[in-house]
Amino acid sequence: MQRHFVEELDALKTNLIKMGSFAEESIAQSIRAILERDTILAEDVISHDERINALELEIDDAVVDLLALQQPVATDLRFILAAMKINNDLERIGDHAVNLAQSAVQYAERPPVRESDIPRMAQITKEMLRDSIDAFIHGDAPRARGVLVKDDVIDDLNKKILADLIVIMREDPSSLEQALELARVSRNLERVADLATNIAEEVVFIAEAQVVKHNVEEKRQAARRI
Amino acid sequence: MQRHFVEELDALKTNLIKMGSFAEESIAQSIRAILERDTILAEDVISHDERINALELEIDDAVVDLLALQQPVATDLRFILAAMKINNDLERIGDHAVNLAQSAVQYAERPPVRESDIPRMAQITKEMLRDSIDAFIHGDAPRARGVLVKDDVIDDLNKKILADLIVIMREDPSSLEQALELARVSRNLERVADLATNIAEEVVFIAEAQVVKHNVEEKRQAARRI
Repeated sequence: MQRHFVEELDALKTNLIKMGSFAEESIAQSIRAILERDTILAEDVISHDERINALELEIDDAVVDLLALQQPVATDLRFILAAMKINNDLERIGDHAVNLAQSAVQYAERPPVRESDIPRMAQITKEMLRDSIDAFIHGDAPRARGVLVKDDVIDDLNKKILADLIVIMREDPSSLEQALELARVSRNLERVADLATNIAEEVVFIAEAQVVKHNVEEKRQAARRI
Repeated sequence: MQRHFVEELDALKTNLIKMGSFAEESIAQSIRAILERDTILAEDVISHDERINALELEIDDAVVDLLALQQPVATDLRFILAAMKINNDLERIGDHAVNLAQSAVQYAERPPVRESDIPRMAQITKEMLRDSIDAFIHGDAPRARGVLVKDDVIDDLNKKILADLIVIMREDPSSLEQALELARVSRNLERVADLATNIAEEVVFIAEAQVVKHNVEEKRQAARRI
């Protein structure tokens, strides 16, 4: 028996919120694993990725069922398509959490290098992710716009960290692998911030039916290549 | 007046093929710009990204219209949702072409470093992209499966190139920036191959209604962090 459309839509939203909290938790833990050199926590993140992948497929199937059985239009259709994109973004954030956890394992094997901006970048990235998910849950466009603004800060930090790491590599070639590992961490954080920005854009899009995507595309493009 | 569903679907397919050829051309040109140190060609790629972004939005709108007005089910619905994903993948491939073109500009400024596997990696990546697009156009699942197999070769090449570059950086610290630029090139090629793999997975999915995605997810995950 077919459930009511409103119930199906609620179930989709609930699953996306669950997906969001999985992604948020994995990112927070992988960051802690790097900063506290906690390889057990890192392994935990890696083993938990499976549940994010499984939930992504479940949500994707639910979206297809909703579209096929309920044939929504207008606002509901836009919401469901946005949900599909956000679902994919969250799964990719889960992948980056695994990358960060793998970096945590590698990084813990040798002495740390003196790079002081990673914790701040990690903190802002976590805030962006939390805000974009909260903005989605509450349909809060102003909060989503706050995420878009922070993307510039992350891009600048990513550039600064890479420049600092090049100096470190040049001064002390024995720290090369460790510095490259932190460059990888910085790059993954930047990608997470980028995906949080995607989610925030979808929230703004749902709320205001306005495409802000390619306005910020150029700026992000400049940062992503770092 | 509303056009026939079949016509709308054909128009969507035609636009996706156009999008695919834009993406393919941009990647081929950015690779040539790197190998031949051709900064004018690189600037060309960068300035052409706009048309890919514009076409992505046009296709996305067409998908929403198709879903809202025609309310397709079963195979057609799956095809249209896959088209939406492929559209997004192609836009991201365009972004990577811009990254590669920017690397071409940077790399041409200083003497090259001796890294011999980039041309081969570039060649395979181009083949994967062309095959995935051709497989989509012709609904050719066996050809799409051929792309999935090559993803492992790219991952191995990416690892080998990074290891080689670390040796180069250690032996000659003055080549640091140039070696990092090639690491960036290798990473962007790996991401393009990854997105070509996504497209190939969608083609297999449409053809065989079978989710191969998370089977290869783990392998790719291991490579993506390089």
